[in-house]
Order: sequence, then structure tokens, then C-alpha cells
Amino acid sequence: MSAGGVVQVRVRYPEVDRMGVAHHANHFIWFEIGRTELLRARGVDYGRLEDEGIFLPVIEATCAYRAPARYDDFLRVHTQIEGATAVRVAFAYRIESEPGGLVVATGSTRHAAVDRTGRPRRLPARIRELLV
Amino acid sequence: MSAGGVVQVRVRYPEVDRMGVAHHANHFIWFEIGRTELLRARGVDYGRLEDEGIFLPVIEATCAYRAPARYDDFLRVHTQIEGATAVRVAFAYRIESEPGGLVVATGSTRHAAVDRTGRPRRLPARIRELLV
Amino acid sequence: MSAGGVVQVRVRYPEVDRMGVAHHANHFIWFEIGRTELLRARGVDYGRLEDEGIFLPVIEATCAYRAPARYDDFLRVHTQIEGATAVRVAFAYRIESEPGGLVVATGSTRHAAVDRTGRPRRLPARIRELLV
Amino acid sequence: MSAGGVVQVRVRYPEVDRMGVAHHANHFIWFEIGRTELLRARGVDYGRLEDEGIFLPVIEATCAYRAPARYDDFLRVHTQIEGATAVRVAFAYRIESEPGGLVVATGSTRHAAVDRTGRPRRLPARIRELLV
Repeated sequence: MSAGGVVQVRVRYPEVDRMGVAHHANHFIWFEIGRTELLRARGVDYGRLEDEGIFLPVIEATCAYRAPARYDDFLRVHTQIEGATAVRVAFAYRIESEPGGLVVATGSTRHAAVDRTGRPRRLPARIRELLV
Repeated sequence: MSAGGVVQVRVRYPEVDRMGVAHHANHFIWFEIGRTELLRARGVDYGRLEDEGIFLPVIEATCAYRAPARYDDFLRVHTQIEGATAVRVAFAYRIESEPGGLVVATGSTRHAAVDRTGRPRRLPARIRELLV
Repeated sequence: MSAGGVVQVRVRYPEVDRMGVAHHANHFIWFEIGRTELLRARGVDYGRLEDEGIFLPVIEATCAYRAPARYDDFLRVHTQIEGATAVRVAFAYRIESEPGGLVVATGSTRHAAVDRTGRPRRLPARIRELLV
Repeated sequence: MSAGGVVQVRVRYPEVDRMGVAHHANHFIWFEIGRTELLRARGVDYGRLEDEGIFLPVIEATCAYRAPARYDDFLRVHTQIEGATAVRVAFAYRIESEPGGLVVATGSTRHAAVDRTGRPRRLPARIRELLV
């Protein structure tokens, strides 16, 4: 596995539910921020990739929730690329609270490379090289 | 003012914040549902309008919050068209809780008619006729 | 496995992203609606359960995305209880588009029974009986 | 009017709709981030305020949308306190894109000071002093 990335997010007020903890759907949005920043650090601007007609929709997502995240907490999202082929990319995530490093959640997403219409499309070699 | 429309929504778990009441950003999403259903009742399918290259982005939005909405509450969104020209449409909203008719919020949105690139575009006469 | 439940949701405008399809975090919110309605059909009002001090936070969630959901689509969320003990409940979901029955997504959630402070708490027998 | 605050936010993928621009409900969430950071800079930790039983729910919100915000854009949220009494606080906002300073939106929120049950509650003098 190649070097990963870390990005910080702060838990927003509307992300917290009436249990007083971040609602479980938000972790997937934080994973996405981690993924975007990891790609950017590798030289892949995801927005520009889409402008070129290459999309990476999620085809599978999992999350294990280990500790609650609360309003205004700082979180660190650690992201790694688990594997990349011409038509698939997989990421692994670990969200930790700050300070302390308590693991809030771990998870994964798998993505298909498709064109604007949703049809499979091979990732260009220059992109694949940045992902391995 | 012409006849309005009513649509029912149920307050979702993630829409409620740690105060135990619906977060104030959601009312604008409920207004949008009210607007969509009013347009549909008038014969305007908003999704198809966009497919034809006519968009109605919000250029102004207001909401006065009068009573809290809570998890699992049924709400009724009352929507009316306040005015429509070739390039502007304005809506007024009133959200009531069910049963009882307690007013949860009132508000308004103003919209510009634009094309896919965001440039002003006149609404076709057949659409304008449905809005007055 | 015991009888499941079905609930209909309509894809909202802000749930759709710039790919033109529902963003993958929303499926977990639709699963939650399916779960809430299944519980209600079994005689368990989830809001009241929380008022009594019994919470069922998600400890694991998965989703496999099979077909895109688009703006204004009607979806049917099919939910089943996969298993229930005194301290754990598991649900399985299948989202289909309407009409046609195309499978949009399948998924699962696992929940722990906890009290207001997040400590494990056994489900009362009267609740467990409603879940099997 | 006293000195304001500035905070940076980046437009997230799910915040962008199928028009390719940030959905109009998100601006109220960005206003809230601006407000929270302004309060923090003044020495008021909003989360702790709630823990002490003082809440500031929104009773009125407005936004004028002047230019679209797009995926991955950096935005600067400028926030100012417009006025504060023992039972009301008002904020004004201006969101600019970065770099360039194009005005994306301006808006306002008014808040009531209430207790945990939603009843009016006077802000303690030490808090009021931090707001003027």
C-alpha cells in the first residue's frame, strides 16, 4: 500500500443529531473529503477529472462506527488507496478524533471509472500512475 | 394570487439537531418540495424544464421560524406563486404541523430564469401561462 | 427472517450531485426511513423509544450501489430485520426504482442498544418480541 | 458595528446540485460556521453555551444569492454582529469566493436566547459584553 493522506474536518452543527453525536451518514462525506485531498496530494484534481469526462462513482461503501463524534470536535481523516486498476479504485479510511487519536470510525469505498453517461471507461495511464 | 398547493413531509432523523428540533436549513428544502409539487400540479415538471435547458435558481430566500418542528412530525407545506414575469418567479410558503395547524414557519423565495450556463433566459409563454 | 416493510421516498433536488445522480450518502438516510417505518409497522415508535432512554445507534453500515437514482425518481425501500438479540439489531435493505423494480442499492446496518450516555443497555422483552 | 470575523470553507461534493452549483440551503450552514467562529474569536464557545443551558435558535434567516459557488471552490465567510440585547442577537454575513473576492452571497440571521425547553432566557451579562 502506498503513502496515504490526512485531512482535518470539524464536526458541523447540523451534522449532529438529537443523540448529540454526528449522524452516521456524515462519515461517508468525511471519507469523500479525505479521498479528494489524497487525490489532490497525488496530483489528481477530481473536479478537473470530471470536467475531462472521467467519473469515479462509489459502487460500494462500508463504515464501522467505533466512537461518537460530537459537535465542534476536530477529526482527522486518514485515507489510503487500497488498489487501482484501469476500471476500479478502492480506498480505506480511518477517522480519529483530535487530540488523542481515538478511532471514531474505519471504512472503505470502491469506485468504478465511468464516462459522463455512466458507461465503463478506462482510466488514462497518466492517472493510473498517480494512484499506485 | 392564484390557487396554491399543499404537500406533506415527515421530519427525518438527520434533519433534527442536538437541540432536538429540525435544523433551520431544512425548511428551505421543504419549501423546495412544496414548490416542486405546486409546479407539478400546474403541469410543469421541473426536472423536464431543466432537461429543456431552463433553470430557476434561487436568487433570494427568507424564512421566519415560528415554532420548532420535531423528529417524526408530519408537516404540511403550503405554497403559492406570488408573481411571475418572463424572467422572474416568486413563491410564498407556510409550513404547518399536523394535526393542529400550528404555524412552524413562513418564508419566500425568488428565482431567476436562466439557461444552462447561468445567463438570463425568458420563460416560454406556455410555461408563463401555467404560472399565473 | 420475518416479514419486512416497504416505504416510498422521492429523490429530492439537493440529494442529487453534479453527476446528476443521488449522492451515495443519501442511501443511508433512505435506509433509516425504511427502518423507522418497519419498526412503526411492528408497533415500535423509534422516537418514543429514545424518549424512554433506549437508543439504537448504527455501529456498522454497508451499501452496494447497483443503479443510479435520479432527481424526482420514486424509490421503494424494502427493509427486513436480519436478527435481534437483547443488545444488537441488524437490518437488511433493498432500494428499487418505481416503476420497474430496478434494484438501485442493497445494504445493511447493525445497531447497538444503548442508554442516553452511550452505555450498553438491554432491550426490554416487550420490544424484543416485536422484532423477531 | 464591532469587528467581524472571517472563516474559510471549501465547497463539498454533495453540496453541489445537478445545476453544478452549490445548493442554496448550504449557504445557511456556511453562515452558521461563520457565526460559530466569530463567537469563538470573541471568547464564546457556542457548544459550551448550550451545555450551560443557553441556546440561540434562528428565528429569522435571509440570503441573497449573487454568484454561484462551485465544487471545490474556496469561500471566505465574513460575519458581523449587527446587534445584541439580553434576548436577541443578529448577525450579517457576506460570502466571497477566493481568490478574487467575488461576492457569492449576503445574508442575515436573527436569534432568540432560550433555555433547553425553548422558553426565553436572558443572556448572562458576561456573554452580552463579549457580543457588543
